[in-house]
This record gives sequence, structure tokens and C-alpha cells, in this order.
Amino acid sequence: MSDLKTHSCEACSSDAPKATGEEKQQLHKDVPDWEILDIDGEEQLHRIYKLKNFVKALEFTNRIGDLAEEEDHHPVIVLEYGKVAVSWWSHKIKGLHKNDFILAARTDAAFNNMQ
Amino acid sequence: MSDLKTHSCEACSSDAPKATGEEKQQLHKDVPDWEILDIDGEEQLHRIYKLKNFVKALEFTNRIGDLAEEEDHHPVIVLEYGKVAVSWWSHKIKGLHKNDFILAARTDAAFNNMQ
Repeated sequence: MSDLKTHSCEACSSDAPKATGEEKQQLHKDVPDWEILDIDGEEQLHRIYKLKNFVKALEFTNRIGDLAEEEDHHPVIVLEYGKVAVSWWSHKIKGLHKNDFILAARTDAAFNNMQ
Repeated sequence: MSDLKTHSCEACSSDAPKATGEEKQQLHKDVPDWEILDIDGEEQLHRIYKLKNFVKALEFTNRIGDLAEEEDHHPVIVLEYGKVAVSWWSHKIKGLHKNDFILAARTDAAFNNMQ
């Protein structure tokens, strides 16, 4: 059982180190439903969630918004009827930081709490 | 000054007629900031709005959600920090119905009300 969602995020500046290959491999085990995608040379964590309808998808979007504001770290969210797609990455370092895995874990927890 | 936002939406079934070329041209004049994009053979209305930050973008997303639920017609919304991209089209007819232009006009009005 992962406790990554309980970890603290660190301040992420443009000179913060990206997660290394080994770190990513380890962190990915805690958020196995997320894909690591390479978008124009920047790695991103990506997951699509299915929800019952538009209202539920919007409610989930708001919960993700709360997580994002708490950490001042913001994803891209694609919201449509019954579906929410989320991408987390660290714009400043053009790739993945441990924070992105923590936020992905918290997004999973928010989704699980809605079920 | 457009009053398209005050028009009523019609029930849209899979045998509803798509807007004709001439109708689209006319309706488009009322929502000139929207692009008509061809996505995999289906026309969609598309507009990107700039907002001050994530909270404002999320607030606008919720207002669009209210419009969508009122008419039981749902867009795709891409939400990110300071930016909301909206696509309206009629899935059932795989293209544009007058309703989409009405909802685009209402989305513009919701945005203008936030300024």
C-alpha cells in the first residue's frame, strides 16, 4: 500500500533536479495506473479517469484543483462527459520531479474517495 | 450586438440536421472569436480563453459546467494555469448544430461576466 500521497512536496525551482531513472522507476510503483509519456521531449505523468457523468467529472476536477492550489503546482486537466484526463509534470524543469508523483498519488486518493 | 446567447437550444437527436454552410457562416458572425476546426472529419467550435491564474480558470470551468448542465449538452474543456480551451460540437450528429453556436455565445457571455 502506497503512502506516497502523504509525502511533502518540495519547493521546485528551475535548478531542482529531475527525478533520475532509478527514482522514477521506484516512484512509478506507487502510482502504477499512471503512464509516463514523452510530450515534445518533456516527460509527463498521465492518467485517464472514468466517471459517471459530467457533474461527477467536474466535481473531481474541482478536487484536483484543491490539491493543485494547496501545493501551488498545477496540472493540465481535460474534462469531458464522464471522463477526466490529468497530466502532471514540472514545467520549470521540463520533466518529472518527485512532486509530480506525490500529486499523482493524491489525485488517485481523491478519485478513490469519490467512489 | 449578438443575442445568440438568448436563443433556446433545441433537442438534438442523431437525425437532427447539421447546420448548413450558409447557417454556419451566419451563426459564426455572432461568435467571431471561435474557430471552426475539423477534427477527424467532425467540425467543432474551439476557443482558448486566457485567465489570471488557475483559480480563475477553474471558476470559469465551473461556469461553463453550469451552462452545459442547463442544456444537457457538454463540451470538452482543457483547463490549465491561466488558460481554458473549450470545444463545442454535437457528438450525435458528428458536427455542428445551431445549439453549439448558442452555447459558444453563452460561454463568451460567462467569460465577459467574469472580467
